[in-house]
Amino acid sequence: MSEIGAAERRARVILSRLGEPGDADMCRLVTEFSAEELLDRVRGAESSRSSALEGWRERLPRADYSALMKAAESVQARFVCPGDAEWPAALDYVAFDVSGSGDRRGGAPFGLWVRGSASLAALTGRSVAIVGSRASTGYGERVSGQLGFDCAARHITPVSGGAYGIDAAAHRGALARERPTVAVLAGGIDRPYPAGNAALLRKITETGLVVAEAPPGATARKSRFLVRNRLIAALTLGTVVVEAALRSGSLNTARWASDLGRPVMGIPGPVTSATSAGVNELLRQPGVLLVTDADEVIEHISAIGSELAPRKVGPAVFTDQLSVEARRVLEAVPVVAAASSAGIAQAAGVRHHDVATVLDELGDLGLVVRDGAGWRLAAREG
Amino acid sequence: MSEIGAAERRARVILSRLGEPGDADMCRLVTEFSAEELLDRVRGAESSRSSALEGWRERLPRADYSALMKAAESVQARFVCPGDAEWPAALDYVAFDVSGSGDRRGGAPFGLWVRGSASLAALTGRSVAIVGSRASTGYGERVSGQLGFDCAARHITPVSGGAYGIDAAAHRGALARERPTVAVLAGGIDRPYPAGNAALLRKITETGLVVAEAPPGATARKSRFLVRNRLIAALTLGTVVVEAALRSGSLNTARWASDLGRPVMGIPGPVTSATSAGVNELLRQPGVLLVTDADEVIEHISAIGSELAPRKVGPAVFTDQLSVEARRVLEAVPVVAAASSAGIAQAAGVRHHDVATVLDELGDLGLVVRDGAGWRLAAREG
Repeated sequence: MSEIGAAERRARVILSRLGEPGDADMCRLVTEFSAEELLDRVRGAESSRSSALEGWRERLPRADYSALMKAAESVQARFVCPGDAEWPAALDYVAFDVSGSGDRRGGAPFGLWVRGSASLAALTGRSVAIVGSRASTGYGERVSGQLGFDCAARHITPVSGGAYGIDAAAHRGALARERPTVAVLAGGIDRPYPAGNAALLRKITETGLVVAEAPPGATARKSRFLVRNRLIAALTLGTVVVEAALRSGSLNTARWASDLGRPVMGIPGPVTSATSAGVNELLRQPGVLLVTDADEVIEHISAIGSELAPRKVGPAVFTDQLSVEARRVLEAVPVVAAASSAGIAQAAGVRHHDVATVLDELGDLGLVVRDGAGWRLAAREG
Repeated sequence: MSEIGAAERRARVILSRLGEPGDADMCRLVTEFSAEELLDRVRGAESSRSSALEGWRERLPRADYSALMKAAESVQARFVCPGDAEWPAALDYVAFDVSGSGDRRGGAPFGLWVRGSASLAALTGRSVAIVGSRASTGYGERVSGQLGFDCAARHITPVSGGAYGIDAAAHRGALARERPTVAVLAGGIDRPYPAGNAALLRKITETGLVVAEAPPGATARKSRFLVRNRLIAALTLGTVVVEAALRSGSLNTARWASDLGRPVMGIPGPVTSATSAGVNELLRQPGVLLVTDADEVIEHISAIGSELAPRKVGPAVFTDQLSVEARRVLEAVPVVAAASSAGIAQAAGVRHHDVATVLDELGDLGLVVRDGAGWRLAAREG
């Protein structure tokens, strides 16, 4: 997808304020027409018989583009769109089932608010969702923290929801390893939630990212958590539920991952622990994978290509989740004799200024390595 | 199989002293010829070129029939053979893979030593193996005890190995519910092992059974534990591993169960517990079922008919594990209007004296119910 223009971007920001995040109808219509055209239709919807359009139109007076951008800027957040260099290609490939009902309904996102200086595509290109209960036990937190630490050490970004308990432990594990982690919020990017994790979320943005689909100012609500969960599932190569009671929200993330054809994994726990009852129950479902450590998690997400159900074709290899630009750069990096960044930029057809950033990101992902003054492809592991 | 005669029975007792319990060659030859004929061949094996026969012949001087029977009688034990009313038909249907190697080699048993007044066929007809580590934790023992208790309450006999830890907890659970349990020993029936569980084993024989394939006097040895495990797997409708470290012997029982086409189940445990590492690893194998309570266990063993692999056809329903006599009686019990035991005995073609015992056993199994002065079939559950 080519980069979208300023007017379309502006329309997307406004639309994000008119509908609920992930609104399946809005997501579909933005793709079918364009945000600009859809916004025009909303504006002229007075006489429309579409209740969706009318609902959005009613919110028009409150959709102040400048105010939204100002709120985002107040926390150094940006609006990222499909076609942007850091837009995760994975999100465009995902077959969201817009006919899904109840707690699994949501379309392909048409823009995300991102806080932190890293590239969203680079960080999520090799990532795993680590989710679980807010009311966790010491056991769950220990395991989640260790998973976050060990995945991060292997250059797999832990992605979670920034909540208390298992989420926070996973984020902290990555930070303890001094590696980035990604938190996806249910509310607005300027509304750290829960407030008690504001410091953690701020810390995350120093090396990693905080992401929100809802516009600035949006509060966290139950329906928004459910639709947020689809992003956690879609941005990652697989989802691990560490500790969850029966009917825990983290099981919803697992179902999203399953719908999207991504591996669903669970950490077993004592059958005497109510906080593990949901995971143990999940592990009784066909196809759900029992994992006990990061090695097993990585094994499963690495094998994603061979395990995808035919209907749910998604990115099959890590590099499929890179941005178009990053892939072009990657293809231009030589296998053996290192090339200079200038040479790589020329071969890839990207600006020299941009190539340095991309090469650093690819280096972080373990895909390329510095060699003297230049770069070459990293040797394949295993 | 019709009841075997006194001479054949005697030959089996002697053979059980000549070979190792479960010796695949001996088990096969007893079936191929008869114990009497095989014993004749052993006796004349001086010039034989069969090293197996010669090995058995060397032990002849120590195989004293009267001494064996006396040792058994000292603990009120009896020798049970195929064809006996209480011989579990299940054992004759089992496709032991005598070509199995290493820790999974053993033929169909040709006789078992049994201590306790209950019927082996009746108690094992609806039974489940509950096994695990001797070096168990409080968690494992609590779960094993509860499983033993709850299975027993549902008229599913817990079968285990009489060892410390998980085994003992399962047995004790059944006893706490005042229901029978079955312990299968690796050594002789007169050698309670471990000695520290002698009182427990004695208690078990009051309502349940202690079983041994090895002859009286035999000590427990590693190889005998492995071959004993096949009996635990074969006598039951499924095997549950409660707690087991990596390479625990109870995983060998699980592999036997799997070989025999019986459901293999495991209780998950903390990934931080070395004592659960073996079960968690087992649960990562395809086809192994994660269970968290007795209901789930019973669900899996009840569905055995639909889950058996084609090659490994074993008893498909509970009643297939009943003795021939018990099945005949069961078929003679009317569905609606109760019949007297005399009438049932006549219809079944068994002696009136015997039918009362069988009806009581079938009643214990929940298959028939008393109705006024007579008996009728129990209503089917579910």
